Order: sequence, then C-alpha cells, then structure tokens
Amino acid sequence: MSQYILKIDCQDAKGLIYKISNVIYKNDLNIEKNSEFVDEESKKFFFRARVAGNLDMNDLKDELKAILPPDANIYIGVRRAKNVVLMATKESHCLGDILLKHQSRELNANIQAVISNHDTLRGLCEKFDIPYFFVSAENLDRETHEEKVLRILEEFNPDFIILAKYMRILTGTFIKPYEGKIINIHHSFLPAFIGANPYKQAHKRGVKIIGATAHFVNNDLDEGPIISQSVIDINHEYSWRDMQKAGRNVEKVVLSNAIDLAFEDRIFINNNKTIIF
Amino acid sequence: MSQYILKIDCQDAKGLIYKISNVIYKNDLNIEKNSEFVDEESKKFFFRARVAGNLDMNDLKDELKAILPPDANIYIGVRRAKNVVLMATKESHCLGDILLKHQSRELNANIQAVISNHDTLRGLCEKFDIPYFFVSAENLDRETHEEKVLRILEEFNPDFIILAKYMRILTGTFIKPYEGKIINIHHSFLPAFIGANPYKQAHKRGVKIIGATAHFVNNDLDEGPIISQSVIDINHEYSWRDMQKAGRNVEKVVLSNAIDLAFEDRIFINNNKTIIF
Amino acid sequence: MSQYILKIDCQDAKGLIYKISNVIYKNDLNIEKNSEFVDEESKKFFFRARVAGNLDMNDLKDELKAILPPDANIYIGVRRAKNVVLMATKESHCLGDILLKHQSRELNANIQAVISNHDTLRGLCEKFDIPYFFVSAENLDRETHEEKVLRILEEFNPDFIILAKYMRILTGTFIKPYEGKIINIHHSFLPAFIGANPYKQAHKRGVKIIGATAHFVNNDLDEGPIISQSVIDINHEYSWRDMQKAGRNVEKVVLSNAIDLAFEDRIFINNNKTIIF
Amino acid sequence: MSQYILKIDCQDAKGLIYKISNVIYKNDLNIEKNSEFVDEESKKFFFRARVAGNLDMNDLKDELKAILPPDANIYIGVRRAKNVVLMATKESHCLGDILLKHQSRELNANIQAVISNHDTLRGLCEKFDIPYFFVSAENLDRETHEEKVLRILEEFNPDFIILAKYMRILTGTFIKPYEGKIINIHHSFLPAFIGANPYKQAHKRGVKIIGATAHFVNNDLDEGPIISQSVIDINHEYSWRDMQKAGRNVEKVVLSNAIDLAFEDRIFINNNKTIIF
Repeated sequence: MSQYILKIDCQDAKGLIYKISNVIYKNDLNIEKNSEFVDEESKKFFFRARVAGNLDMNDLKDELKAILPPDANIYIGVRRAKNVVLMATKESHCLGDILLKHQSRELNANIQAVISNHDTLRGLCEKFDIPYFFVSAENLDRETHEEKVLRILEEFNPDFIILAKYMRILTGTFIKPYEGKIINIHHSFLPAFIGANPYKQAHKRGVKIIGATAHFVNNDLDEGPIISQSVIDINHEYSWRDMQKAGRNVEKVVLSNAIDLAFEDRIFINNNKTIIF
Repeated sequence: MSQYILKIDCQDAKGLIYKISNVIYKNDLNIEKNSEFVDEESKKFFFRARVAGNLDMNDLKDELKAILPPDANIYIGVRRAKNVVLMATKESHCLGDILLKHQSRELNANIQAVISNHDTLRGLCEKFDIPYFFVSAENLDRETHEEKVLRILEEFNPDFIILAKYMRILTGTFIKPYEGKIINIHHSFLPAFIGANPYKQAHKRGVKIIGATAHFVNNDLDEGPIISQSVIDINHEYSWRDMQKAGRNVEKVVLSNAIDLAFEDRIFINNNKTIIF
Repeated sequence: MSQYILKIDCQDAKGLIYKISNVIYKNDLNIEKNSEFVDEESKKFFFRARVAGNLDMNDLKDELKAILPPDANIYIGVRRAKNVVLMATKESHCLGDILLKHQSRELNANIQAVISNHDTLRGLCEKFDIPYFFVSAENLDRETHEEKVLRILEEFNPDFIILAKYMRILTGTFIKPYEGKIINIHHSFLPAFIGANPYKQAHKRGVKIIGATAHFVNNDLDEGPIISQSVIDINHEYSWRDMQKAGRNVEKVVLSNAIDLAFEDRIFINNNKTIIF
Repeated sequence: MSQYILKIDCQDAKGLIYKISNVIYKNDLNIEKNSEFVDEESKKFFFRARVAGNLDMNDLKDELKAILPPDANIYIGVRRAKNVVLMATKESHCLGDILLKHQSRELNANIQAVISNHDTLRGLCEKFDIPYFFVSAENLDRETHEEKVLRILEEFNPDFIILAKYMRILTGTFIKPYEGKIINIHHSFLPAFIGANPYKQAHKRGVKIIGATAHFVNNDLDEGPIISQSVIDINHEYSWRDMQKAGRNVEKVVLSNAIDLAFEDRIFINNNKTIIF
C-alpha cells in the first residue's frame, strides 16, 4: 500500500468536496490528511489530500476529470523523495544547511548536484559527496552561460531547482521550462529592499527588523510568489555586516521551511500568490 | 439565507468526509469554509464547516446522526454574536481592550455584564454602558462568594465567560455548569510559571522571553486546554515591574485572539488540548 | 532630590565618557542609568544618562559645554510626564489604547487634547474626559486646514504630537515647528507598502507576514526615522480585511512602545535613523 | 595596536564610571564600545568595554584595582578567537551548524575537538577535519566516564565547552573546573519542560509555542543561567516528531547566538542570571 498526493485546482462550484471525496471513497482509498480552500477573489477552489491505498493513477485521474469542471488541474503522484539540483554562488550557509539536512536524512529529497558560477563551494560539496558543476560566467554573455547550466539541468531533470544564494539574475528563457519549480531565497522581507544589497539598503533606511523571503522565481526580479518569510529584531548597533551575519540564520531557516513545503507538494501557485496546506 | 456553523467530532472511520459532504450537498447547502483533522493519538476525527443556505437544524442533525459513528458529537448553530459575561479584578488592560473592541464592533459578541470581586473597574465599565456587578469576597468563604457570582451568571446565561484578569481561583462546582465555556488569560507562557506572580518568578529565573497564555479553565489551576500563546523578548534590564508592563500588551493580544476564535466556534477541546480551525 | 535626563550628541572624540562622567561626579549626581553609542558612519557620539541629585540645569549645561566639542547638542530636563496632543481620524484602536493607558496611569504623559478631521471619535474621547477638537477638512485647502489645527496646537504647546491613525498627509509647514516631535503609526513594515492602503497592497503581493511601523514624521511620506516595528504571521486565508483586523493589534502595540520610548527621552534622531537607549 | 576586552563587576558605588574611564583615558586607550548596568536587587555594578591601544594588562589591572571597591572582579583579555571543545551525542544539527560556521570563518573560535559518547558523528567531524574522541559510556559508571572525558579536556584546556546536544547529565565534579564555561542547548523554553523528552512533554501539554534555551551548566539540571531563548509557533497538527523537526532549527540558532555572545566576552553571570552587553 502506497501513499499518494492528490492536488486539484479549478473554478469553485457547489459539491466539489462531496464529488471528490466520493471518488476517493469508491476507490477504497484512505484520506490521511486533506485541506481545501476557496479563494474569494479568483473564485478558485484548491484541494490537496494525502491518501493511502492501491490505485491506478491514470484511472483515478479520469474519474476525477469526469466529475470536475473542465478547467481543473489534477495532479496525482506517489509520495516520494524529490530530485533536486541546488545552485549557489559563494556563500555557504544555505547550501551547507541543506547538505547537512540531506545527510542526516531530514530532507525528503535526493540532491543530485550543485551548480555554481564560482568554484568556491566545491570543497564543501565534495565533503558531502555531491557532484559539483562549476560553470564560470566569465567572458560569457548571460544567454551562453545559462545554456551551459540548462544542459546540466537537463541531464538531471530535477523536480525542483533550489537557488541557495545563487547571486545571478535568471532570464525568462531559463525559467520557462522550470516554471513553478525554481525556489529562491532573498535576504529581505520582500517587497522591502528588492534588488542588490538588501542589508545595505536596510542599514541605510534604519529599519528595526530585517528578514528573509523564499519565493518561486518568475520573470520579474524578486516578484515571484512568496512561500515563506521570517524576520528578526535588530537595533542601531548593527552595522550592515552585523545584519548580514544575523540574517544568515534567518535566510537558511526560511529557505529550509520553504523547500520542506515544496517537497511535500503542499504549495499551490495562484497567479502571484501561494496557497499552502 | 443564513450562515451556520457545523461542528462534528467522533471516532475516525473511512469515508467520513464523503458521508458528511453528501448530507450537506443533498441539503443544497453551500460550504463556505471547511476543515478536518484526525488526531493520530486518540484516533478522533474533527470537522468544522461554515455553510450557507436554508436548513432545519434538527433535521440536519438527524441526517448526520444516521451516517456518523454512534459516539459522534454534532453541533449546529446559526452564526451569530455570542453572549458574553466578563470577569475581572482590578487590572484594566484586558477588560478595557475588550470593551473598546466591543464598542467599535470588532468583536463578534454581545457583552452582557462585567462581574468583579472589587469595585475598581466600575468607572471604566460605566463609560461603556456595561452593567457592572461588584461581588465582594470579603468575609465570605469561597463557596458563598461563588454562589453569588453564579446567581448573576444564571440570569445572563452567557455562551462564554471571559476571565479578563480575574485573580481568584475557581472551584470545580463553579466551573462544572460552564465547562468548555470559561476562558482565562494567564500571564506566562504556560506551563512555565504556574500559579501566583509569574512575572516575579520569571524575573527570579532570569528568562530572556516572557509570554501569556489563554486557556479554557478546568479543575486544575493553569492546566486547562491552551488556546493561544505569545511571547516577547526581554533582557537583564527588565525589573519584574517592567516585565509586567511589557507583558500587558502580550496578555491583551493573546486573550483577544483566543476569544475571537471561540466566538467563531473554531475551537474543539480534545481531552486537555485544543484543535483550532 | 529630583531625577533628570541628560542627552548629549556630538562628534566622537577620545575621552568623552571620562569628561562627561567627571562633570557628573563633581556635581555630586548619581547616575542611575547611562548608555553611549558611537555611530561608525557619521562618527557621532551619543550619550544619555538618568541622574538623581540637586542641580542647576543651566550651570550643568555650561560645564558640559566647556568640555565638549563645539558642535555638541546638550539636553537636560527634569524627568516628568510629557504633554501630548493626539491626532486621529476615524479608527479607534490606537487612540483608545492610549486613552486606556492614560487612565490607568501606565503612560508617562498628560494627554492635553485630541484633534480630528472627523467627529467620529468624539464620544470615545468624552468618555475619558479628554478635550476633543473636530477640525473638518471639508471645502478647505490643505494649508487652511492645517493652519486651524496649528492654532489649536499652539494653545497646548505639546512636547509630542501622536498621530494615532491620522489619515491625512502633513505639509512641511505643519511639521517644521514640531520637528522630531511628531510620531506616526504606519500600518506596514516600512519600507514595504508605502502610501495608501498597505493591507490591500500586502494582500495583492501575497506576503506571509504583515507589520506596523512607528516613525517620526518628516517631509517625505512614510520616510521618517523609524522608532519601532513589529510583525505577525499571516497566510493565504487572510483577506485584506482579515489582515487589517489582525494588524490593528500590531499597530497599537508598536505605537505604544514607540511613545513610551519617546516619553522617556530615550530616542536620538541621527539623520534619517534613530538611536534608542 | 590591539583590541582588548575589559570586564568589571563589583558592588555599586558613586563615580565608578568616572573612575574607570579616567584610568582608560590616562592610559591613552580608545573606547570602541562600552556598556554598564547596575542590578537594583544585588546592588552590583557591571561594566564591559572594548578598547584599542597599547597596554600592559597587569599594570592596567593594578590601576583599576586601586580605584575599585575591594570585591571587584576585573578581567582584561586580548580580543581573540576562543579555544573551544564541542560535546555531542548522536544528533548532528547543532554540531553541524557550528562546524559549518567554523569552516566559513563566521565563528570567532578555534574548534579543538569534538567529544562524544557515541561514534555516530565521527564521519561528520572528519569531513571538517576536527579531531573526534569517542568515549563510550557503556559499562562505565558516571564518574569513570566523566574522568575519561575530563582527561581529554585537560589536554586542550578550552576557553569554552559547548554541549551541542550532549544528552548526558554532568556531575558537579565535572562542572567545577569549568564553571561558567560550559554552555548547553536545551530543547524547550525553560523553565517549561525540564528534563527528558521536552517535545513529548510539550505535545502532551498541547502548547501552541515551542522553544529552545541556551544556558550555562551548573549543578542543577536545566537550572543554569539562561543566555538565549527563542520560540516558534506550532499547532494541533504537529506530532511530537514534527515539533522535534521544527525545533531543530530553533535549537541551532539559539545555540549559535549564545556562543557568539560568549566568544565575544559579552556575558556576565550574576548568581543564576546573565547580564549580556
């Protein structure tokens, strides 16, 4: 008997829960956990269930299609460790945190590779026996560099790409094939301090809290759907470097929370927002 | 068309959601929001829905009873402002906060009266035109005093009794007729600093965070099911009076959150814990 | 024997603490609490002490002037309740919170009056016996309206003006005579969501935390020196009205913390930032 | 020119800051940062300064001794990376976090060794080239085991011993030579859930927040002076294993904050409390 994740979103209508739970019941599946939400603005219905039992995923999908509105998106997948490629630049705190959790089996994921535009983090990755791909961006235009990275990604065909402090902006061409699958950590409580050097910006503005934001990456810099945020208090004694140091703990925890949610298929993207069960 | 709250708890079984949503669907009710939870330990199933439509509450209850396990508790009620009696002693911050919210219609409740063992807060209550009952405990044994209070409560027959810093311990006799309906605010992050003077205890222990806890009252002092908690950071500069002052803001916010949840029938009590939808 | 607050800021130099504490010592004053900070960027030195004893404020100022750099700002004041005028529009949560604290003597301030551009909050203020000035802005240009308000303020000559949800933008002319004395509460964690309707903006952006910011008012909207900030977690279930409701508790606590700091003369303004002891 | 840390505590008296700053000034030292605090209860004065310049530590100590009350404790030390031995049992999250920070030079410390009562974490430590000492406790009484550990510690003579999830209780004999130098992380917001299995205790009690506490170790289990605490919100959906998983992020951040403070000599112990500058 396996566990499956079932995710549905569609226009809201009367009786959806009854109809879906009817299909699940008739298939003799046990609902271990389920959640629903109707977004009042978009009038969209979101449903996620973790079910246990024996099922034919195609048959179940067909049965659900028959009773759901025609616009319905239906995802059915075995609950399993996700395949993941990490991308990073020079900072080790987020990457190291993920590698440590991977090693102690706290992560519901299989890390396939790390790709970096620098060679700095090779040593760390090798400690944990993770293949490391150094793709220098020197003397390359953005497109050529991204193509090289994309070729590596294609080899691995990951479920998710985690930008663990990857400090380059990605083009739409890069993002397109992995839409909704690229998660970034930004070192501010977005939408404050979009762009470069958020800690310097925060220091200049004299804020009393700093934070971090994990979000899906889309074409607009730092504008993608937010998954997770957290903050800490600071005060006038903090230089921007002190903020950066204190912020690292927030960044890695926020990213860790976000990828845990993603790896359990708990996130829906609804336009520019997330619904998280 | 009215809004109703439907709450069910019973032993977990296969198909419960299907069966319940079937009854709701057949009755042509619209589910505006629903939540479920299965407690793995007690194997109990909890369900809450806000539905809109026309219904006969007794008929619906009978229909649900027919398809649910025999131990099921079923609550169906019109969504409405709750009737509430507040009890307090001398401190005004929690009481005043509730009275202010009541006046600006932020509270889904009708405050029927304030009962106090002191006369201190009469002026405040009269400002807001709330009947004030001063029941002195002087020269009375606990039982006699409680009887006098109970007689006032009987007049009002409130849905909830809110202990907004009522500084007397209640006996089992008092609590029994209002089980699951009395909410207290305790000025510590329980179970730390049970009993008297938690801020003095916190100061003595040298903690770096203090907090507050809203909980249902049962026979065991400060041991009832916890509804809501929050904390704030402090440091060595705080005297216990500084903690008390800073703590007041936490206390009133925690109590406010807890009663909002209660007034919307969002809380289940499962032995000594709460499930909150 | 009285308590005094002594505040000094000047260009940093060697021996400042020694020289200042020497003056204090020679005057036989007891330092109850003191704090210093040197801002590395501006190379400015900030000092605050609470001292007890008998002193002639002018003499002490002269003695300090003699040993400090020529650019030094020296403030010496008796520790006392501040005179305060509140300004508000229609919302009662911040205003009511301050009035409650004033009444229970938790506020180190004497509230002289409330000024509003609407008549909505008159009833609340009269409950607490605070003079209420309704200055309608209808059919008036901004300057004329502000002049009427300024004339009332002049009567009271307050130490601080607290904008407890005063929803009009103030001009430079209004602000100038009260620079560093006007404190506003903004319903977002600035610099996110500057301007109108921050909760609607937050809802649209899909953030997972919302917050509030208390700051001194200067000529640039929502750009003044930040005093205090706080946030709470939200999720996809929150409509912007839910955010507004939840945010009210944050707003009033943040404003309350900020004015407590101001009323104790614990805040320095250093360009667009605050140093808080 | 070197940086020095100067720490003084003694009975409070008039003029202490003047006298101390006079000595510092006469020695031509530059105060980069200083802090003072008087504990009202114990009437004790605490002072810490970071000074830069050329000094003879013994001479300075003598000069200070001459002007301070006879009970004064004076510490003068060069600002430098501390020597540290880590102790752990089987869990890797706190240990791994410290090793990562050590490697990326974020830690103001030199990790000399890891000692464990299990062999589980050897691989992790070897990745980071840290000597690993496995001292099995099997078939040994507590005293004999501790003696073996003490012998290793003596070799290294560390400034601090960090218990990064070392799951054995230490005796007074072990603690005595390292009083004020052993820092432990406890997985609850002490004093709640003292002793074994705090997450199971927290689950049973039904709390809505869980936390972690870093504290100095003394003879009373989980009763030592608290350095740092933090919490996170949980809800009824959390099993105790979910709490444990979520709690790991809190534990490692709290421990990390505490050791940063200790390594910068920012902590005073005052009976059972800490004063932190």
